[in-house]
Amino acid sequence: MEFSSKILERAVNEMSQLPGIGKRTALRLVLHMLKQPKEQTTALVEALKTMRDDIKFCKSCHNISDVELCEICSNPIRDTSLICVVEDVRDVMAIENTSSFKGVYHVLGGKISPMDGVGPHDLNIESLVNKVKQGEIKELLFALSSTMEGDTTNFYIYKQIQDYNVFTSTIARGISVGDELEYADEITLSRSIINRVPFENSLKS
Amino acid sequence: MEFSSKILERAVNEMSQLPGIGKRTALRLVLHMLKQPKEQTTALVEALKTMRDDIKFCKSCHNISDVELCEICSNPIRDTSLICVVEDVRDVMAIENTSSFKGVYHVLGGKISPMDGVGPHDLNIESLVNKVKQGEIKELLFALSSTMEGDTTNFYIYKQIQDYNVFTSTIARGISVGDELEYADEITLSRSIINRVPFENSLKS
Repeated sequence: MEFSSKILERAVNEMSQLPGIGKRTALRLVLHMLKQPKEQTTALVEALKTMRDDIKFCKSCHNISDVELCEICSNPIRDTSLICVVEDVRDVMAIENTSSFKGVYHVLGGKISPMDGVGPHDLNIESLVNKVKQGEIKELLFALSSTMEGDTTNFYIYKQIQDYNVFTSTIARGISVGDELEYADEITLSRSIINRVPFENSLKS
Repeated sequence: MEFSSKILERAVNEMSQLPGIGKRTALRLVLHMLKQPKEQTTALVEALKTMRDDIKFCKSCHNISDVELCEICSNPIRDTSLICVVEDVRDVMAIENTSSFKGVYHVLGGKISPMDGVGPHDLNIESLVNKVKQGEIKELLFALSSTMEGDTTNFYIYKQIQDYNVFTSTIARGISVGDELEYADEITLSRSIINRVPFENSLKS
């Protein structure tokens, strides 16, 4: 791509560093900014700068938070003996949207993935193991993606804490609500049969 | 979407102002930035700020340029009596990539589109008409999108300059190279028949 301006080229190159944004999309976004009032770009730039400089992570669960202890961890109604282990902030948001979890979270910040150069020490695993060692946790609920990396991470943490008196669970795998049975993959279908639940449970919403 | 941090929410909201970027994508991009080294976000922020503050437009063709008269307009080899009228910078880049145009450009900065509140006076039409009035232009080649707005804009400009001694042309409409005839729409196919060219011309690349 030949640019008529170095300034434009630099902006496009920086934009295209973002995941899923190629050079063409970056150019479209940047030209859009040029057409909009200057204040809009200023607001974006300020918001990104503030975010990168000032954002904090909850000292207990590592969720993104504006205060030292996030709203969930500091809420007295939440059950702090039940910890849901998730990959990142988006998973916390997704589970919070369901209103069906009353415990607290622990955000790992990723999954163990040797292919991407992410090892256990790049994640917030040590602080989780320490919480378990202190003996106040009754249950760990693993809610990672159902992938090779997610399973590896689950198993790594499980190995670290198996000698302590803590119950571990994972979210149920099965047929998605609304899905046709014939289109389900074999592993999911077989898991949903092995882990079948009493019919009365399915009547609860 | 419920955010655990106002700073995060603000960054996501500003990102999602960009075209084609919804809240979910914005959150993904912003979380990606948080995982990357701080320098990367700083570089993006600086590049966008510089672009919005310092970018210049060529005083002749309104193309984005770092100097007063862009490289194309100031190139002595280019034929300044042949002007290709385009919508925006991307079209200049697309045509320049073909290396088949030896004239200069005039960037309108958009198309006349009453639905979007864009009238003739929001575009660089007056400066184009003035160039024609000065009598040094031999040909105007309209290369706008083949849409209602593009055709309206072409016609508006044509009306403004029809009393002056200038030849006007538009880029050819027809079957794309490599396309199967049966999938072409009727209007394109009919245009390609009406505007048929001598077979010898098609042998030139």
